[in-house]
Amino acid sequence: MSTQTAPQKHTPEEALRSANQRFYAAFESLDMNQMDAVWAHDDAVQCVHPGWNMLLGWEEVRERWARIFANTKRVRVVLSGVWIRVEGDVGWVGCTAHVTTASADSIDDAIVQATNIFILRGGRWLLATHHASPLPVSSRSTVQ
Amino acid sequence: MSTQTAPQKHTPEEALRSANQRFYAAFESLDMNQMDAVWAHDDAVQCVHPGWNMLLGWEEVRERWARIFANTKRVRVVLSGVWIRVEGDVGWVGCTAHVTTASADSIDDAIVQATNIFILRGGRWLLATHHASPLPVSSRSTVQ
Repeated sequence: MSTQTAPQKHTPEEALRSANQRFYAAFESLDMNQMDAVWAHDDAVQCVHPGWNMLLGWEEVRERWARIFANTKRVRVVLSGVWIRVEGDVGWVGCTAHVTTASADSIDDAIVQATNIFILRGGRWLLATHHASPLPVSSRSTVQ
Repeated sequence: MSTQTAPQKHTPEEALRSANQRFYAAFESLDMNQMDAVWAHDDAVQCVHPGWNMLLGWEEVRERWARIFANTKRVRVVLSGVWIRVEGDVGWVGCTAHVTTASADSIDDAIVQATNIFILRGGRWLLATHHASPLPVSSRSTVQ
């Protein structure tokens, strides 16, 4: 029985799953420093919030996150149906996010279907595109 | 059924723009042979139609397109805000699609925001992920 203690190497898929979790942890943290750390900071990043047009470029994307964070007291995200694909230095994740949001005067539940595209830069998977769209609240993902 | 294509003389971005146009032309054609030709046919393709959960795998994705085509008499798609990014053998397109659909008893207008991810296989850009989500009909993309 080998008792090798060499550090466990992660597959690209595991690294991508962690990057995706860090993105949603950053969302839950409502801390722009954490959100800054998960995105690529270039003019080509894009972001589609549920029911909204595409935002293009890090400046525009960041500004909208800052506004969401400023108007939110607490957020909890539970993921399901997480599906991962890696092709070279690009990887993308399909997942269903069950999002509960508390603002100053309400608590809202939403279910969104997300496609998150990451690019590998200096050994780190950085978010390049986030596309989230609304699902009926009764929807449940059939993919686990 | 030949799928041979002429040698590529275009930039990757131009080839990707053409692949994206072929996808929407296949949608307008309501011809499953055309739809077959634009997608990668593997277990990992995914598709999110507006307001629906993710479909996973070519069989499931194709079956849904066949059902949409069977229930549609005519469809017209006008694209705007087309935005293209290529990273190695993966490319993705963000665009706004203005979709007019005629079925047996109605004509519907919809505006959807789409993220389409393509992979390069044998010199051809094949669709691997289509994520389309509803926008308010009054929305207009700010990206050209």
